[in-house]
Amino acid sequence: MASDTRDRLVRTTSRLLRKQGYGATGLNQVMSKAEAPKGSMYFHFPGGKEELAAAAIDFFAQRVTRRLDDGIGAADSVAEAVASFFDDYITHFERTDFSEGCAVATVALDASAAHEGLAAATGRALHTWTDHFAAALEAEGRTPAEAHGLATLVVAAIEGAIVMGKGERSTEPMVATRDVLRKVLAPSP
Amino acid sequence: MASDTRDRLVRTTSRLLRKQGYGATGLNQVMSKAEAPKGSMYFHFPGGKEELAAAAIDFFAQRVTRRLDDGIGAADSVAEAVASFFDDYITHFERTDFSEGCAVATVALDASAAHEGLAAATGRALHTWTDHFAAALEAEGRTPAEAHGLATLVVAAIEGAIVMGKGERSTEPMVATRDVLRKVLAPSP
Repeated sequence: MASDTRDRLVRTTSRLLRKQGYGATGLNQVMSKAEAPKGSMYFHFPGGKEELAAAAIDFFAQRVTRRLDDGIGAADSVAEAVASFFDDYITHFERTDFSEGCAVATVALDASAAHEGLAAATGRALHTWTDHFAAALEAEGRTPAEAHGLATLVVAAIEGAIVMGKGERSTEPMVATRDVLRKVLAPSP
Repeated sequence: MASDTRDRLVRTTSRLLRKQGYGATGLNQVMSKAEAPKGSMYFHFPGGKEELAAAAIDFFAQRVTRRLDDGIGAADSVAEAVASFFDDYITHFERTDFSEGCAVATVALDASAAHEGLAAATGRALHTWTDHFAAALEAEGRTPAEAHGLATLVVAAIEGAIVMGKGERSTEPMVATRDVLRKVLAPSP
């Protein structure tokens, strides 16, 4: 089915962006890993690699957003939801030998400057994540300005801890960042 | 002079890694931008692109380390030194239209998983920066454990704010992260 092929192309690209970014990801590699029939790429993505990568970033970002919302809904506080997000990422790093980072961060660093469409996709994702954390912090009684500032720190700390985890091939920076953030985010008594 | 050529190759590569990462950076582009004579690449870097990129990461990292140490030396507190580092980066983003990120972070995300030599270089850089911030925080009276945790958060927040700045093409995330970190790092009275 055509839509299965599109789905495989998007998922495969999302994974490759997490591992190696936009520059190193070639269409032949995507086609081969997705086992996509010849011609299907330009049928689904007439704009080529950039359009496919933007769709993959949106797909990845929406999955992360659902994961964040579920975590916030299940936890007693934003502090605990963030800590649990770190815990899941630590497990993910251990399972994938530090090979899979954040698709949004990797593309933001390696390709957003040269590609408007990719900058739009990474910008959408980062704004959404910041806004969701901010809304949850406001619900805990923070002012909008406080909530936005802390939410920005949370998103930055998550992205940066992923950089450190991959760059050091260690879960230690994620553990340390998680533990400090938990204190910073603790609701005032 | 041969050493001038080596220096140009390293500086040019460092800049390209900041803009586009390891995957998108080709040796022909480096040679052409560095105006390096044919054959000079393998004369100076017999290990090819990976050896050159590792040298560029070390060069970039040492420059950042000097900048951090100078900032810590000149400021009244680590909180102010970190805020001033963010201010300089905000100016840098404005001047370069969000094109130049951190060479260490970009390579950590796009290439460290597949290249041992690059993971070693990114790991060295991140450990060094964390250790320098931690030493300065200990000098302000924090315990070693507190200092290490906060220093890790600082490095993660800087790297993540750069991701957000590039990904949103905006200085706003850096401003917000700077202002929250300043409060988090304020020495207890």
